[in-house]
Amino acid sequence: MNIREESLQKHYEWQGKIEVVSRVPITDSKELSLAYTPGVAEPCLEIQKDYDLSFKLTRRNNLVAVITDGTAVLGLGDIGPEAGMPVMEGKCALFKEFGDVDAFPLCIRSKDVDEIVRTIYLISGSFGGINLEDIAAPRCFEIERKLKELCDIPVFHDDQHGTAVIVAAAMLNALKIVKKNIADIKVVVNGAGSAGIAIAKHIMNMGVRHIVLCDSKGILCEGDSRLNDEKAAMAAITNRDHLTGSLADAMKGTDVFIGVSAPNVVSEEMVQSMNRDAIVFAMSNPTPEIMPDLAQKAGARVIGTGRSDFPNQINNVLAFPGIFRGALDCRAKEINEEMKVAASRAIASLVDDSELCEEYILPKAFDKRVGKTVAEAVMAAARATGCARQ
Amino acid sequence: MNIREESLQKHYEWQGKIEVVSRVPITDSKELSLAYTPGVAEPCLEIQKDYDLSFKLTRRNNLVAVITDGTAVLGLGDIGPEAGMPVMEGKCALFKEFGDVDAFPLCIRSKDVDEIVRTIYLISGSFGGINLEDIAAPRCFEIERKLKELCDIPVFHDDQHGTAVIVAAAMLNALKIVKKNIADIKVVVNGAGSAGIAIAKHIMNMGVRHIVLCDSKGILCEGDSRLNDEKAAMAAITNRDHLTGSLADAMKGTDVFIGVSAPNVVSEEMVQSMNRDAIVFAMSNPTPEIMPDLAQKAGARVIGTGRSDFPNQINNVLAFPGIFRGALDCRAKEINEEMKVAASRAIASLVDDSELCEEYILPKAFDKRVGKTVAEAVMAAARATGCARQ
Repeated sequence: MNIREESLQKHYEWQGKIEVVSRVPITDSKELSLAYTPGVAEPCLEIQKDYDLSFKLTRRNNLVAVITDGTAVLGLGDIGPEAGMPVMEGKCALFKEFGDVDAFPLCIRSKDVDEIVRTIYLISGSFGGINLEDIAAPRCFEIERKLKELCDIPVFHDDQHGTAVIVAAAMLNALKIVKKNIADIKVVVNGAGSAGIAIAKHIMNMGVRHIVLCDSKGILCEGDSRLNDEKAAMAAITNRDHLTGSLADAMKGTDVFIGVSAPNVVSEEMVQSMNRDAIVFAMSNPTPEIMPDLAQKAGARVIGTGRSDFPNQINNVLAFPGIFRGALDCRAKEINEEMKVAASRAIASLVDDSELCEEYILPKAFDKRVGKTVAEAVMAAARATGCARQ
Repeated sequence: MNIREESLQKHYEWQGKIEVVSRVPITDSKELSLAYTPGVAEPCLEIQKDYDLSFKLTRRNNLVAVITDGTAVLGLGDIGPEAGMPVMEGKCALFKEFGDVDAFPLCIRSKDVDEIVRTIYLISGSFGGINLEDIAAPRCFEIERKLKELCDIPVFHDDQHGTAVIVAAAMLNALKIVKKNIADIKVVVNGAGSAGIAIAKHIMNMGVRHIVLCDSKGILCEGDSRLNDEKAAMAAITNRDHLTGSLADAMKGTDVFIGVSAPNVVSEEMVQSMNRDAIVFAMSNPTPEIMPDLAQKAGARVIGTGRSDFPNQINNVLAFPGIFRGALDCRAKEINEEMKVAASRAIASLVDDSELCEEYILPKAFDKRVGKTVAEAVMAAARATGCARQ
């Protein structure tokens, strides 16, 4: 039985991967009157007087909504809201396991930006944070932007920012191995959807100056009329040499390749055309842009993928649980750039110089230190930027 | 320290009364790949092929949303969505404790009927049922009606139907004590909001033929131009003698008084004016329409209230957990009249004729048989009426 067949069988057994339980004893009339009527009137009235107390007197203090419209689920595409829910439930299980964050999955039966935004805003008083998940680009950008304006709790599209945070962490450590300076390297990001654009922005925030984005048609160049708004905006701040051409053209003479695109789109020749000590993060899942053995044969020195069966799995489970843990613990107004940079650095810091090597650039997913270390770094950054409410 | 102060202190300690936990082990890479990527792709694709499998492969099979707009919370009124959440969380804890139903609390930041309906509909694919809670009348009627048309899962406004179910159960047993026939009795319901109207409709479904509704202005009579749509509709099917006047007028010569109204609005004289062996359910909370000792002095034979510190607490915790348990277990399309009637009869049946007496007409809230018995009766009624999907 392969992993997908086994997973399906397990899903039938599990009957759901999350469960809502009671935190209070209700075994006699006294306990009933404390948890419910008449006692419960008092916390209600306290919140009515002081809205902020909703973060003390209800589960909002530890609760994140994991929300999808089902349009970009895993590599499966637009499979519909209900069909996306096994992924959302899985994500919620990871939030709890790796960050002790209560997370609740919701799917929305709409593809209309304003309707999705309004729906999420209207229920946002029930939560302490919003994690958007598997929403197709470019819609996801507008949804996130509008929600950040409306909501008084952090809104975070993990496919963008969680991925960006962990890729940057991996790159920081890979650069130590190859002894290159982040300000000098040339980077190609292949894939100009939500993940690719967020990765490009985030590593620029961390100091990358030379970067080219590609989509399936090739290099994004300023002035190209085929680009949508988000791609055009990225073309205007990347590729300052105004290169045009294919991915193969883009990769020549670069130091880092970051793929969030499609299986097998990178050849050995393309890796050979990169600079010495090339870093190749081929994160298309389950089949990478180039298989690690081929990349290595072609001269890549540090290689990462999205898979757990190769070294250097670049997995955002290292990022999102700790990021939200930190944001909730200081009641952050949002998850800002500084907090994401702090998260990347914190993850990278968990690999000691003594352990750091070509095959070990990131802590393991099950490393118990990760969630806490990320949370503390995120909280410190939130405080330093005036983003923490407590 | 009184109960409300103690409850507030507990709420600070609890930091939320519900918690979202993981049902799956995620302690190594294999388990991660079953609960999340890549294994999770398979249940997603199965649901995409067959929507009904969302009720097998996700927590939908056992999950109810408890949703409010915060406009009619307990006796506190319109205190706002976030301030209503301690009640919603308490309700969710009761769902779990008494029905093993996972329930998740949501508040909606809107008072617009269509916006509330649309919001709930759009997220309804995440749940197996919708429990509306503490939404002000008459808005609650329209919201429930529209949602029942739109949604493919049961929608149930507990303040209406849960209350009606338990009041009817109490009345069935009280009638046994006084040896009166349901078809012959005269009933007054005081309070023409969501609970009063639902009670009137439900007991008419169960066989009551002579019934008069009152609101704070007095008897509802057909043709009265001051009545809103819902009250006018009720006036047209109750009060067939076209009585007019005050509550005191209404109560003369009746057998059953049901109050879901306001403290101390019923005097001893009014109870004295009722027929011999009067039944008085004075459910205003925390202060009843008439205190039990006064009602008894005035000649009432069976007396119930909403409070746990008097005999015969009429508490819908006896109803809603089992009703939803049954509806979920047979994947009912809705919770129809027959299912509610079955629930009332099932609850009443749990008091043996040998135990039945003036001070014991309903099973206790913590009677372990209740949830299961109600669930089985509700399921049987769903099957008998073609309302069960499995």
